[in-house]
Amino acid sequence: MASTLPSAFVWLDLFGIAVFAISGALLAAEKRQTLVTFIFFAAVTGIGGGTLRDLLIGAPVFWVHTNATLLICIVAALLVWLTSKDRFAGRALLWFDAAGLAAYATYGAAKALAFGVAPVPAFGMGILTACAGGIIRDVLAGEPSILMRPELYVTAAALAAGLFVALALVGVAVPVAALVAGIAGFALRGAAIARGWSLPAYRD
Amino acid sequence: MASTLPSAFVWLDLFGIAVFAISGALLAAEKRQTLVTFIFFAAVTGIGGGTLRDLLIGAPVFWVHTNATLLICIVAALLVWLTSKDRFAGRALLWFDAAGLAAYATYGAAKALAFGVAPVPAFGMGILTACAGGIIRDVLAGEPSILMRPELYVTAAALAAGLFVALALVGVAVPVAALVAGIAGFALRGAAIARGWSLPAYRD
Amino acid sequence: MASTLPSAFVWLDLFGIAVFAISGALLAAEKRQTLVTFIFFAAVTGIGGGTLRDLLIGAPVFWVHTNATLLICIVAALLVWLTSKDRFAGRALLWFDAAGLAAYATYGAAKALAFGVAPVPAFGMGILTACAGGIIRDVLAGEPSILMRPELYVTAAALAAGLFVALALVGVAVPVAALVAGIAGFALRGAAIARGWSLPAYRD
Repeated sequence: MASTLPSAFVWLDLFGIAVFAISGALLAAEKRQTLVTFIFFAAVTGIGGGTLRDLLIGAPVFWVHTNATLLICIVAALLVWLTSKDRFAGRALLWFDAAGLAAYATYGAAKALAFGVAPVPAFGMGILTACAGGIIRDVLAGEPSILMRPELYVTAAALAAGLFVALALVGVAVPVAALVAGIAGFALRGAAIARGWSLPAYRD
Repeated sequence: MASTLPSAFVWLDLFGIAVFAISGALLAAEKRQTLVTFIFFAAVTGIGGGTLRDLLIGAPVFWVHTNATLLICIVAALLVWLTSKDRFAGRALLWFDAAGLAAYATYGAAKALAFGVAPVPAFGMGILTACAGGIIRDVLAGEPSILMRPELYVTAAALAAGLFVALALVGVAVPVAALVAGIAGFALRGAAIARGWSLPAYRD
Repeated sequence: MASTLPSAFVWLDLFGIAVFAISGALLAAEKRQTLVTFIFFAAVTGIGGGTLRDLLIGAPVFWVHTNATLLICIVAALLVWLTSKDRFAGRALLWFDAAGLAAYATYGAAKALAFGVAPVPAFGMGILTACAGGIIRDVLAGEPSILMRPELYVTAAALAAGLFVALALVGVAVPVAALVAGIAGFALRGAAIARGWSLPAYRD
């Protein structure tokens, strides 16, 4: 069960929620929305991916029996609403988002394995945990989804999730596997940000 | 469990389904769709919010073990299909929708609390129950979502859900809390309809 | 439980996954996407409908405890990526998709009945199983959904699902009911492809 996950994962989880909630609120700011929309977007982006993961693996949805998670999203939305958007936007957020992406992909794969999910779907759960919140946010906002851009984004989540599952399968201790996987995912996403790396598109 | 909810809630629930199903079918009419699309939109709008709520709180999905709920949606779609669209459209529907919104937000929060959900997420479940069906309908239709309009809509659902949770927490009897919360949500939405109230948008 | 379903249904299921996964990857090809998007679209289209069905009826999500399902989707995406798109596109795929549609609608209704779902929602589950994956794919890609086209598509799924439920209710043996329902759904969809049949749109 989830309780066997090291408590460091709790911090990965809270960090991911806050970073993604801010990125959701920033999209609301860019679209000149109201505070209610800020909160809605912060919540959807912050907890959407983990919610989908929990529904799919049959875990109780992680934010339903605690007040803290939604409150983090509400505070994140208020922060973005009250301060200048410029404080959060730009490259700083990109790097926080990269850290959130790597943390969430690793955490999602670890939680799935801890719930007895098979390796390939556990890998998929890591990707979903990291990416689904942003995808739902983009669909709700009528924006072209991150899915449709050649940028290395989903791929970095796939690297972190895949590495964690592979290392866990060959018997590496969970904290070590998580550290290696998280750093690798963050490094790949970071390279994409710093150097503009992207995947080749299909051509026939 | 849900069985401890007063039976008046059953009527709130059926009323919400019917009103929202009609609003879904009306969007299909506006978009000149086929009868199959009418039924699909009526069902998605009528039961989408409650479905999401039940999945998230771990309740059995409310329309899966009964025939009545989907039949209400099918009948609502047929009604809109067979009569002139004008009979339903316009201000009358807006007011029915306001009543459905308040009823659903109250009912959703009450059901969540009855399932042992924490107060802040129970508040969120009220909002989702009232708004998610319409949001899914708009996404499927490629319409700008109610989420993105400054109108007081989600806010009215938040008022009803928040009031119910707050009153229930301080020990007010459930039927009284529901009545107060439902009327407050309906009044706020009504004021928005009658006077064009809306929320301020973000500006930096 | 699902284990009481004849094993022929397992093949219907795998066939539906493969066909729909290919159709998802083809949309990615049409949109000149990367391999990661190919895989994402193949998976969403191949397993989206069945996933929604399992969540709604309270069954364990079918692909979470096995590696095979996602691997089929990954292989389908690679196949489309590596070969010319023309090999799959055009009328051949339309006919395979018609077979997948009929198979999935029948299988979805049968699985729902086997889980004790009431007849009308079981009928709805057949339609969702067959159509929801494609609908989610279209929403993610920003395409007009199959839902909004007058073409006989959802209707053919409704015929297969409705026939299966009706025959099962009057006591016809499950394999016979499945065969009749699947052939009827395929025939109706085939007629729509061959002759351009479509439903009348709403006019006031």
